[in-house]
Amino acid sequence: MDDKNQMTAVYPGSFDPPTLGHIDIIKRATAIFPKVIVAVLKNPGKKTTFTSEERLSMLRSAAGQEKNVEIDSFEGLLVDYVQKKNARVIIRGLRVISDFEYEFQMALMNRKLYPHIETIYLMPHEKYSYVSSSLVKEVAQLGGEVGCLVPPSVEAHLKLLFRKSKP
Amino acid sequence: MDDKNQMTAVYPGSFDPPTLGHIDIIKRATAIFPKVIVAVLKNPGKKTTFTSEERLSMLRSAAGQEKNVEIDSFEGLLVDYVQKKNARVIIRGLRVISDFEYEFQMALMNRKLYPHIETIYLMPHEKYSYVSSSLVKEVAQLGGEVGCLVPPSVEAHLKLLFRKSKP
Amino acid sequence: MDDKNQMTAVYPGSFDPPTLGHIDIIKRATAIFPKVIVAVLKNPGKKTTFTSEERLSMLRSAAGQEKNVEIDSFEGLLVDYVQKKNARVIIRGLRVISDFEYEFQMALMNRKLYPHIETIYLMPHEKYSYVSSSLVKEVAQLGGEVGCLVPPSVEAHLKLLFRKSKP
Amino acid sequence: MDDKNQMTAVYPGSFDPPTLGHIDIIKRATAIFPKVIVAVLKNPGKKTTFTSEERLSMLRSAAGQEKNVEIDSFEGLLVDYVQKKNARVIIRGLRVISDFEYEFQMALMNRKLYPHIETIYLMPHEKYSYVSSSLVKEVAQLGGEVGCLVPPSVEAHLKLLFRKSKP
Amino acid sequence: MDDKNQMTAVYPGSFDPPTLGHIDIIKRATAIFPKVIVAVLKNPGKKTTFTSEERLSMLRSAAGQEKNVEIDSFEGLLVDYVQKKNARVIIRGLRVISDFEYEFQMALMNRKLYPHIETIYLMPHEKYSYVSSSLVKEVAQLGGEVGCLVPPSVEAHLKLLFRKSKP
Amino acid sequence: MDDKNQMTAVYPGSFDPPTLGHIDIIKRATAIFPKVIVAVLKNPGKKTTFTSEERLSMLRSAAGQEKNVEIDSFEGLLVDYVQKKNARVIIRGLRVISDFEYEFQMALMNRKLYPHIETIYLMPHEKYSYVSSSLVKEVAQLGGEVGCLVPPSVEAHLKLLFRKSKP
Repeated sequence: MDDKNQMTAVYPGSFDPPTLGHIDIIKRATAIFPKVIVAVLKNPGKKTTFTSEERLSMLRSAAGQEKNVEIDSFEGLLVDYVQKKNARVIIRGLRVISDFEYEFQMALMNRKLYPHIETIYLMPHEKYSYVSSSLVKEVAQLGGEVGCLVPPSVEAHLKLLFRKSKP
Repeated sequence: MDDKNQMTAVYPGSFDPPTLGHIDIIKRATAIFPKVIVAVLKNPGKKTTFTSEERLSMLRSAAGQEKNVEIDSFEGLLVDYVQKKNARVIIRGLRVISDFEYEFQMALMNRKLYPHIETIYLMPHEKYSYVSSSLVKEVAQLGGEVGCLVPPSVEAHLKLLFRKSKP
Repeated sequence: MDDKNQMTAVYPGSFDPPTLGHIDIIKRATAIFPKVIVAVLKNPGKKTTFTSEERLSMLRSAAGQEKNVEIDSFEGLLVDYVQKKNARVIIRGLRVISDFEYEFQMALMNRKLYPHIETIYLMPHEKYSYVSSSLVKEVAQLGGEVGCLVPPSVEAHLKLLFRKSKP
Repeated sequence: MDDKNQMTAVYPGSFDPPTLGHIDIIKRATAIFPKVIVAVLKNPGKKTTFTSEERLSMLRSAAGQEKNVEIDSFEGLLVDYVQKKNARVIIRGLRVISDFEYEFQMALMNRKLYPHIETIYLMPHEKYSYVSSSLVKEVAQLGGEVGCLVPPSVEAHLKLLFRKSKP
Repeated sequence: MDDKNQMTAVYPGSFDPPTLGHIDIIKRATAIFPKVIVAVLKNPGKKTTFTSEERLSMLRSAAGQEKNVEIDSFEGLLVDYVQKKNARVIIRGLRVISDFEYEFQMALMNRKLYPHIETIYLMPHEKYSYVSSSLVKEVAQLGGEVGCLVPPSVEAHLKLLFRKSKP
Repeated sequence: MDDKNQMTAVYPGSFDPPTLGHIDIIKRATAIFPKVIVAVLKNPGKKTTFTSEERLSMLRSAAGQEKNVEIDSFEGLLVDYVQKKNARVIIRGLRVISDFEYEFQMALMNRKLYPHIETIYLMPHEKYSYVSSSLVKEVAQLGGEVGCLVPPSVEAHLKLLFRKSKP
């Protein structure tokens, strides 16, 4: 460990929308690293449910008050962004075994591109092990209650979204 | 992150014997944390191939020269040891999917016992993904070459061990 | 177990189209529960190969003659439908390990929404372990023989469908 | 479903010792089936931590008061026992993906031996997903607190056992 | 093994584009079988990044010089093609556990259609275990370096493709 | 492929005892390779149920009549034996996903030791997917019928063995 900047960790993701599982990982990360950058992926080629502005805003409401957290967005290769931020740690949550191989492929590819950047995995609380952004949207769309799975600001966004989409 | 001691990370294991995969994880950990304690489990109830003294000695030869590494051993519950050391991070290597569920059970159990201690996972270089202590011993016992899988001091110990055991 | 209605089990699915693996699960369920409702999901947001009417009709031909089976369809949240039917058991088939985690996520989410509704898993005959609706359609579209994988009425529908789609 | 006896379900296991995960499955089973027999495997060829008498006694304390539960033990093939009890359903808990294949092998083998006996899988509460008898014993032996993982009578037995085994 | 033709093995795939992992499998296959046909799937119903002509051309540049390799393309059922070529072995690469079940479903389905055609699995070098066509495209599109993951002709095609697609 | 000897394939295993799943793999292998050596591992350090002589004898009864099959035994490293036999292919059966990672570790280790020896995987008929030597012994010991899971000579050996072991 050479200097302070390198203790910055980046937690990248789509966060479409953020769930309480994501917030749980952010809190765990801030207990380990002096600075945690939550980085929203802006991928023009992929259709998302919420715009990157909405996703940033929901993250800011839910985790922006943590003192060593920065909420940001990025385009392009994740490792280029991590490098630019003088960070050297990427944080990922591992919930289920099916995350595992995709995560490992990404981590090995990233390591190939920048060998000194390390990916570390944290485990969310087991009560969030089944919570994914897509499942949350599916339940919300069908009228199910998701208040215990997402932060309040996300719940509000989901209600607005699926009310609009009703006939 | 509250104070400096908490940036100490503990990397526990049997290390029976240490492999180049273990050494790879130790090096990755030292690039992230100010201090890494490699902690050899002394479990009187479990038969090991090497004594805890031998395992400590092999680790010292192979990783003791890293400047922020301490080689130690412990008995009893891992989390009690981590707590005693004023650390709050446990490091584990994840090589293969079958490690995954056992690791998660242990991490959740440890979190139940001490909620503020976090387990993080690092991935060794893919060239060590198939290297395990037991496979190394099996190959060495049958006369196979393990010089590219373990540190030199471990290779010497293995040769001595399996020469003795031959008729 | 409080009363008779609660012994009704719901077997939900897309059944797009039903396979002999689905029919196998239906028969196993009827040997355990006094009443089994096979419930076709009508999801306006998802494109299916067959209309819900066609899927209902194929299921009626293949399993409608079983005396304690009801063939029905539903929209919205599965657990709302199960509740409305005074049932408390959801039946799911587990063929392969990759079904496992998705099924568990769904079951935990459903349990969160209605804690008294239980999901149980049955295993189809091993000769159907590789039979999925999508694989059946893929083979039928390329002109392969699927008579041993689907009920006769489904085979007829598939032939009709892919004859039409040929130039 | 032909007659009432067949609605008896058997929940077999080693229960060495029973955990709150086992008790959770028993309660879920009693909400579905008119009668649930919890059947302790007495395998003279396998060494257990607790005698079959102790395991029966711990199960009786923890689940014997449920009105449609019977606590019993058996030797020999599970399916012979299920047949003798006029039951036709075997209940198994599925916690983690690594249970999956062993469970499926057993279920297919049992189905080969008695085709009319069905194995069904229930999922315990996610807070017990990491609780296994062997992990509980390991933690208790090292002096860890297991009161939130096992019923009170089991905690007492574990304390007694590991006090005795200390020097 | 009845005659020489049957020692022909077919290695089918989308190869969209071919990676060094694919080339590695081709080389391993040619060391075992007298003749290896690399067969590009032309599926009019699926959108690919490269045309079948481009994929054939990239494979010819990268593996066409191997003396017992034939580069070809096919439409329709793979097993019909294998049969027409008088081959009886299908070769597939297994990189990761998530390939496993899909591969097994396909192999069992193919065996159902033509019982005498056998599917065999080879493992690429571990340095390619994380290399997939889709990951390579994703990295190339974002401007990452993929020269160590694909043959030179593929790298050239990728550069051309993603230069064009930039605004 | 350089010469005829290299088309010899070795199918190694403990075969303690051989099952119909093993015999199924042997038949599939003989349809691909001019010569298949079934190689019984004699590991003095591991306790087996049957002696290597008994295992060889059971294999000879069950598969010795196949014209291009040789039944043999070996000690030491598998790859040394394969090399000595002038073979370059190792055959392994893959039944279930939990075989996968162990098999891959072994294959990568063997490839490290002798890079020109290739391991290939075959899949047994799905009706044997749940048949393992240990499960067969467990069922036979408890008095279950295993005639449909093992060859006749193995069934006879199992009956003899477990009659003797009864009090």
